Amino acid sequence: MAFTEIEYGVADGIATITLDRPHRLNAFTYTMRRELIDAFDLADADDEARVVIVTGRGRAFCAGADLGGGGDTFNHDRSEEMFGGEDTVDGSPRDGGGTVALRIARSLKPVIAAINGPAVGVGVTMTLPMDIRIASDTARFGFVFARRGIVTEAASSWFLPRLVGISQAMEWAATGRVFPAAEALQGRLVSKVVAPDELLPAAHALAREIVGNTSAVSVAAIRRLMWSGLSAASPWEAHRADSILMRDFGSAPDSAEGVTAFLEKRPAKFPMKVSRDLPAAVPSWPDNPYVLP
Amino acid sequence: MAFTEIEYGVADGIATITLDRPHRLNAFTYTMRRELIDAFDLADADDEARVVIVTGRGRAFCAGADLGGGGDTFNHDRSEEMFGGEDTVDGSPRDGGGTVALRIARSLKPVIAAINGPAVGVGVTMTLPMDIRIASDTARFGFVFARRGIVTEAASSWFLPRLVGISQAMEWAATGRVFPAAEALQGRLVSKVVAPDELLPAAHALAREIVGNTSAVSVAAIRRLMWSGLSAASPWEAHRADSILMRDFGSAPDSAEGVTAFLEKRPAKFPMKVSRDLPAAVPSWPDNPYVLP
Amino acid sequence: MAFTEIEYGVADGIATITLDRPHRLNAFTYTMRRELIDAFDLADADDEARVVIVTGRGRAFCAGADLGGGGDTFNHDRSEEMFGGEDTVDGSPRDGGGTVALRIARSLKPVIAAINGPAVGVGVTMTLPMDIRIASDTARFGFVFARRGIVTEAASSWFLPRLVGISQAMEWAATGRVFPAAEALQGRLVSKVVAPDELLPAAHALAREIVGNTSAVSVAAIRRLMWSGLSAASPWEAHRADSILMRDFGSAPDSAEGVTAFLEKRPAKFPMKVSRDLPAAVPSWPDNPYVLP
Repeated sequence: MAFTEIEYGVADGIATITLDRPHRLNAFTYTMRRELIDAFDLADADDEARVVIVTGRGRAFCAGADLGGGGDTFNHDRSEEMFGGEDTVDGSPRDGGGTVALRIARSLKPVIAAINGPAVGVGVTMTLPMDIRIASDTARFGFVFARRGIVTEAASSWFLPRLVGISQAMEWAATGRVFPAAEALQGRLVSKVVAPDELLPAAHALAREIVGNTSAVSVAAIRRLMWSGLSAASPWEAHRADSILMRDFGSAPDSAEGVTAFLEKRPAKFPMKVSRDLPAAVPSWPDNPYVLP
Repeated sequence: MAFTEIEYGVADGIATITLDRPHRLNAFTYTMRRELIDAFDLADADDEARVVIVTGRGRAFCAGADLGGGGDTFNHDRSEEMFGGEDTVDGSPRDGGGTVALRIARSLKPVIAAINGPAVGVGVTMTLPMDIRIASDTARFGFVFARRGIVTEAASSWFLPRLVGISQAMEWAATGRVFPAAEALQGRLVSKVVAPDELLPAAHALAREIVGNTSAVSVAAIRRLMWSGLSAASPWEAHRADSILMRDFGSAPDSAEGVTAFLEKRPAKFPMKVSRDLPAAVPSWPDNPYVLP
Repeated sequence: MAFTEIEYGVADGIATITLDRPHRLNAFTYTMRRELIDAFDLADADDEARVVIVTGRGRAFCAGADLGGGGDTFNHDRSEEMFGGEDTVDGSPRDGGGTVALRIARSLKPVIAAINGPAVGVGVTMTLPMDIRIASDTARFGFVFARRGIVTEAASSWFLPRLVGISQAMEWAATGRVFPAAEALQGRLVSKVVAPDELLPAAHALAREIVGNTSAVSVAAIRRLMWSGLSAASPWEAHRADSILMRDFGSAPDSAEGVTAFLEKRPAKFPMKVSRDLPAAVPSWPDNPYVLP
């Protein structure tokens, strides 16, 4: 697949997606939206991609929506760049950031954001459904929507208060403040801040900890369990999924290998593949209650 | 509107509500309950009120329910002060703290608690649906209900575990401990602790950051999106609301002005008003499933 | 009741459950599962047990599932130790850790985990529905499921992201990393880390703060309110429960005593008992939508 606004590559078990419009600070467009979704489809289908890292080319991560349309940028009737016609939800064109966020949310591979510079507007909200965010100390963040006269998007009203608490979410979203990496760390938006040179090495170290030690099928199931568990009404829903999946996994080859290798104090070699062996009972989160089949 | 137990005023875009029974440490009464609800109605209807600050007169924020009724204070058959007859939910008189909390929850303006002294019982639970809590270092807090033989109220069993986590919530509620501002900060009940003289200035600085930089209509919509997002079952619900509101806001004057001002590197002058221009699609959270129309 | 794999005792208002297979690092078995459930039944029924403390004998808290079955440990067809036949959910044998977790979740007494050493696999997930976790600095933790080729269990996909946030939950669960007490404290999995000698004294001090100051019936109701509030769709659900329970508690003896004692500046002597006086309106959380009566 040929990409024009992102770069996609796989090496050492890690798929890396690089936002690649450095002349525009990697500003978000309708093309980038489609390419991001396609890239996550590729990663999910590729057993060589155990973890996804998302980062930006140049000095920014993503400066937000490309404002090349000026005052009409967010005007649905005048800006083809932001609103494609084919996708609707309940009669409205789907919010572009949200189409990306919901695709990332259901990734079968863990996703690490390596935020190398400014991440503003959709540039930060697109990272919220990723599992782990680490940042360079040159990163800056801003939920600037109220300063542009629009609203928080990319389903960030679902993700952000769950990640950082409603009080921190409201402080950032109501002020629209642009803030440094240290404030993002203090507010638990990112889990680690490092020097620019250390950013990709830190992301790779985290990815290798997953690639080198775990069953890919277990990790895929666990990712879906955790995120669907976060949205489940009752722990009984988790218990029901656990019961079915512990039965499925407990009699499958990765479990036999995982326990045996542990008892023999050797690294495990897990035979199962996500593309082939993912049990049907793995939750399909997030379910879409709006688009009927 | 003439208030007797609170003071209400608007200046510089900020509505200030001051709990005003200093001789009783601003203890909560049925009158105060009605006046607080009325004050939030005023602020929502007034375009000059962009942010609400709640604080207390004198050395306390609010010492909790007025215990002037002694052992009968919470006895519904004997205490007119705490239980009015008109409001019921599912056959029971509505918990008074809860009527205030649910009104604050659906405020269209961001709410900042400036906690200037002891905030105990309903004195602290009434602050939980506010967006941001900052405290003087003379503040003390207590979820003392178990020490009085009653239960946590003001819907705090919904708000508190979401604000500070279930473990911290249970530690405070099961012990009924009265604790200092430093513990409230450590436990993330408040976001900042300052010297008494710095409290209102800090609250005003935060309010000005909102008033001076943002679209009032955006902020109102974002407040409802965030709180309803916190209670939504799925990010698809947020995505649906985002899609409709991004369409509505994207073609409206505040968005054109917000983007244009940003590109021209000048302060924005947003023309829209909450009283007139709030899109119908803004969520009405929290919905009441118990009282039918 | 005679226990073989745990020890149970009550003193000074505190029920202590000690995992008691020190030769196997207190590894979890089907017998331990049944005994833990029975012990929580005992504590709930005993008015002398105001708080439950769970700890481990010897140098471990609980090393996880007993892997004596080798590669067949989690194989439902071959391991009677892990899967009993009688309990099913939706056609599958119930996950053993989940049966314990859901029993602890509905405890009427607050539960404190005093984690004295390694807590790995079900050894840590069983602590998640406990209210407070404190640890010795010799404790280590691991959500190692992905390293064994299985999935997170014990309904931990519901509990863990609510306790520590989805990002921290995913980092621990996707890497399967074993980590020290300091990382657990930093990630808010535990609220305090102390020297080994200080662990039980710290747990007892917390328990005494509850036993010595509060109404047992209030604490039982509050525990159920808080956990069901965490899973409620709307604060109106909390408000409805509050309204009914404030009416019930406000006219009951513990409330009269609690307020009177406070006004007289003396310790309260609460007359009500959980076994006899718990109002019917106290929520029964967590409700089971899967097993019909």
